[in-house]
This record gives sequence, structure tokens and C-alpha cells, in this order.
Amino acid sequence: MANEFERIRRLQALFGAPPVGVVRGIGDDAAVIDLALTTVPDGKLVWTIDTCIEHVHFNRSIAGWDDVGWRSFMAAASDLAAMAARPVGALCALALPTDLDDEALDALAHGQRDAAISLHTAIVGGNLSRGDEVSVTTTLLGIGATCPLRSGARAGELVALAGDVGLAAAGLRWLLRDPLASPDPSLHVAVQSWLRPVARIDDGLRAGPVASALIDVSDGLAQDALHVAEASSVRIDLEPDAFVGEALMAAAALLGVSALELALHGGEDYALLGTFPEGRVPDGFVVIGSCGEGEGVWVRGRRVHAAGHDHFRA
Amino acid sequence: MANEFERIRRLQALFGAPPVGVVRGIGDDAAVIDLALTTVPDGKLVWTIDTCIEHVHFNRSIAGWDDVGWRSFMAAASDLAAMAARPVGALCALALPTDLDDEALDALAHGQRDAAISLHTAIVGGNLSRGDEVSVTTTLLGIGATCPLRSGARAGELVALAGDVGLAAAGLRWLLRDPLASPDPSLHVAVQSWLRPVARIDDGLRAGPVASALIDVSDGLAQDALHVAEASSVRIDLEPDAFVGEALMAAAALLGVSALELALHGGEDYALLGTFPEGRVPDGFVVIGSCGEGEGVWVRGRRVHAAGHDHFRA
Repeated sequence: MANEFERIRRLQALFGAPPVGVVRGIGDDAAVIDLALTTVPDGKLVWTIDTCIEHVHFNRSIAGWDDVGWRSFMAAASDLAAMAARPVGALCALALPTDLDDEALDALAHGQRDAAISLHTAIVGGNLSRGDEVSVTTTLLGIGATCPLRSGARAGELVALAGDVGLAAAGLRWLLRDPLASPDPSLHVAVQSWLRPVARIDDGLRAGPVASALIDVSDGLAQDALHVAEASSVRIDLEPDAFVGEALMAAAALLGVSALELALHGGEDYALLGTFPEGRVPDGFVVIGSCGEGEGVWVRGRRVHAAGHDHFRA
Repeated sequence: MANEFERIRRLQALFGAPPVGVVRGIGDDAAVIDLALTTVPDGKLVWTIDTCIEHVHFNRSIAGWDDVGWRSFMAAASDLAAMAARPVGALCALALPTDLDDEALDALAHGQRDAAISLHTAIVGGNLSRGDEVSVTTTLLGIGATCPLRSGARAGELVALAGDVGLAAAGLRWLLRDPLASPDPSLHVAVQSWLRPVARIDDGLRAGPVASALIDVSDGLAQDALHVAEASSVRIDLEPDAFVGEALMAAAALLGVSALELALHGGEDYALLGTFPEGRVPDGFVVIGSCGEGEGVWVRGRRVHAAGHDHFRA
């Protein structure tokens, strides 16, 4: 197995030359970025960090190392989408058990690199450490002009969604049930939703100028809608027909579970949920409800309990 | 035990209001910073990440949770010092086993907060996750004007050090040997060097305009000097009398180990090592050697093997 410094050089070669504006990438004490030289427009800095840990967020039996790299990167990048920001670059801190070989590390890094490239950005630095469990922590910097918060929704506005909800949870259930069986075609999309989610940067940028509130759906639609409802002091009513699609219904039927439950409480699709004044819902978003006076998240007159992902109650 | 969202609210209260220029701190999808509003001068963005993991970087038996918080923050901040940058803010990703109670988390966060305040900065966001081992990952953003790299040293220049080397390793050896015994007064400074290191931000800022190369000594003087020698294609000769001080000699004598070995190969003091043209060594730095034609790191005519900390060979 390569030592720490050899591994850093391998990753440096794999991640490639840093993008324009990154004066110094991997190989010194820190990354150095000259924002005036980058290709992103002026704006505020948006900065996020997210961790993906073996046995908590994934298991080796259900995901390849390239999938782990891809997913962990997208989960972090999704927070930039939720702030209507464009990525500038990323750093990654990896904790690796001694039994993780160079081939696995290469696959993981390939997944990260492919995810970064697909979002027109790159990993420009990081940290390697030993650890008993594989842990991938990604921090991304972005530039945003408007950066809609969770707290801006107003009664009378529309609630709209870009992307699917529930499919990733369906895919995960399938993988946990039978990781080696190839899924029924109806479940293929669901499995890919979990293994290869996509941070909706372009949807976020379109929503930025018009959304009163914006959040990414990482913990489940009910939980994340509740974050907006609480921060904005509004009630949110959701219309299931608008967000429970045919693919989800087919997957749920095969799994023998409720499609609505998956849509409300399944996380990790990284859809974007926004609130918008009437007539200003941007392309790519589908209206799924409305904001009113009051509190809580409601579906057809029933208040929904937020049972999204909580690592400490899992 | 508080759940994830309650814990985030506790940390938000503990870390306090975000500093001027941080438009949005803890509690949304990402932190938002308007650099034009911050109190730091213009410059390049300097960005680093570092992880501190239980059983790899610390054990519960030798350090309090406040010490763990403090050390992990300073280890990350030290990379900004090595780039002659002033901190703008920090994010922290914590992985916590379910057996870690709220009291321990509070103590850890207090240590982080105290370290941040001492460097005139703050934690403005982060991520909480479950994990089998405690892991503290800190990312810091800074602003630097000159950002000396490792690669700028030239033959004929002086090598100078701000801060001690070897003391932290002496302190760690003592703690590992007998964590419950209170140390001999000669070892008190050493123990504090390991438990409560300080990132030398001010020394870095003074060195910035004049250093041809700058690095923080995290892996041991021999290893980090070698990073500079290799990146700059120079030979570095070190003079032990200049960096093996009385405190280190006293601690080494009590431990029955070589003071020179501790100074060359002990890490985690976070001293700053710079190279400077003659006559331009800034206040706070002590000349400990020189750069010449050739390669490697040498002490009194003997080439020094770099046996600093490598997590994969530990």
C-alpha cells in the first residue's frame, strides 16, 4: 500500500490541474484561490461541509467505491444548489482504514472526480488520515448572488419541487434487501437515484432570483418542508399527486411499501424545494403545494409527522 | 441525549452570533459570507481542512474533550498560519458515537470555541453525523496577501523557526506513559504543548511579506523541512543548538529519550518554519539553519531520515 505522501501524489495526478483561479491546489499547506481570476461571477461566498461514513451512510456491500465517492460529493454540493450558488472548488478529508487498498481509494477518488467534473468544479486539496471506518468529508465553496434562506417563505406563495423524492429511498431499500440481485427494470431508476444522485446546481441558479425560500431535500420531503415552515413561520400544504410519480409508484409496489411514505420520509434524492410568488415558478420546478397562515406540514388535511433521517435516532 | 437538530441548536447558541460579514451562520443549508463586509483586508482566499480522529490523533484517557476541541481547531488553523493568512471563519463536521453524551459534546465545542476566539474567528457552520469513532474535521477559510509556498526557498537563504519543536511529542509521551499522574514541573510545559498548541497566525502574517517559503511543523522538523527542501530543490542544513532548548532537554532527560530525536521527529507543536533572505528574518523567528545547493535535510554533516508522522505507517 502506498504511504500517505505517495497517496497524496496519486490523488493530485488523478484530480488533475486545478481550475483557473486556483493559484495553488493539492501539495502545499492549503489551497489558494484568487477569486478575481475564477470564472464565477461576483457574489457572496457560500460554504458547506458534509460527511459520509461507512455503516452510517453506506455499506461496502451495496455501493462500489466509485459510487461512494460520487454520492458523498453530490450530497455536499447539493447544499450549494440550495443556496443558489455555483461551485468554486472542493476540499476532501478522507479517513481510511489500513485494510482499504489503493485500488479502492482510486475508485473512490474517480467517483469524486467525475461528480466534480459534472458540476464544472474540482477537488483542489484535502487531508488523508487513518481511521477505523471509511469517512469522506467534503467541503465546497461556491459563489451565489441571492442565496435564498429557509426563512423567506410567505403565506400565499407556491411550494415547488425540482427533481424526484422517494426514489432514492426505494433504491436503498432494494439494495439493502438483496445487494447482489440485479433490480427489476422498475427499480433501476430508483437504485441509480440512490447510488448516483445529482446536485441540482442549475435548478438552484434558476430559482435564486425568484425563490423566497430554498432547501435541498436530503432528510425527506416532510422534514425539509418542516424546516422551511418553521424558519418562515408558515404552514405548508402538500398535494401528493404532484410529487408521487409513476416511477415511484411502480418501485413502491414492487417493494410492498407505501409510495407516499417513501416520498415524504425517504431522503437522499437531493431534490430542491422552493417557495415562490404565484407566477414566478422557474422552469424545472413543479408546483406541489402552497404556503398558508399557521404551522406544520400538511397533506390533504392531515398534519405530517417529520420522520426524516436523524443520525442519532437511526 | 439531545437529537441532531437539538444539538445543532445547542452548538449554535454556544458558538454565538457569527462575526461581521458572515451573512448567514449555523442553521441553513450553508454558511454565507460577504467578504466585502468582513474585517479582513483584501487578498487571496486560503482554504484548508484537517481531521482529528479518536485512537489515531488522541485517546480519551489522555485528553479532555475541551482539549480535543482546542487541538483539532488549532491543527487546522495552523495551515492558515503557514500561508500567512488571517482566518475568516471555520466549519466543523463532527462524527459522534451514540455513547458520547451531551456533556462531552459541550466540552468539545467549548474547546473549539475558545480556540477560535483566541484567533479572532468563529465556527459559522458544520455538520453532525453518527460514527463509531469520534472524528472532528475542521475547515478554515482565510485571507492572505502573499501566501508563501513550500517551493520558494533558494540556496544562500536562512532557515528560521517561530515556536518550539519536540515539546509536544515529549508531552504526548508522558501522557501515554502515565495519563493520571500529574507531570513533573519540567514536563508541564511539554504536556501543555501537546494538549493546547497554538496556531501561529501572527508569526505567519509577519513572515508573509519576507519569507521565500513557509510551512508549519506538524509532522516533525525533519519531515517538514524535507517538504521545503524537495519542493524548492535545495539542501537544508540545521543547527541543533538553535532549536533544542533547555525545556526540551529537561523533558527529554526525565523521559530518558534524546532531545534531538524529539525535536527532529516529534510533530504537533505547530511551530512555523520559514526561509528568508539574509537580514530579513522577522521578529519571532530564530535562525536554525541555512539553504544550500543540493538536496535533503542535514544536521552537522549527517543526512537526516524523515521519520515524521505518517498515519499509514504508524
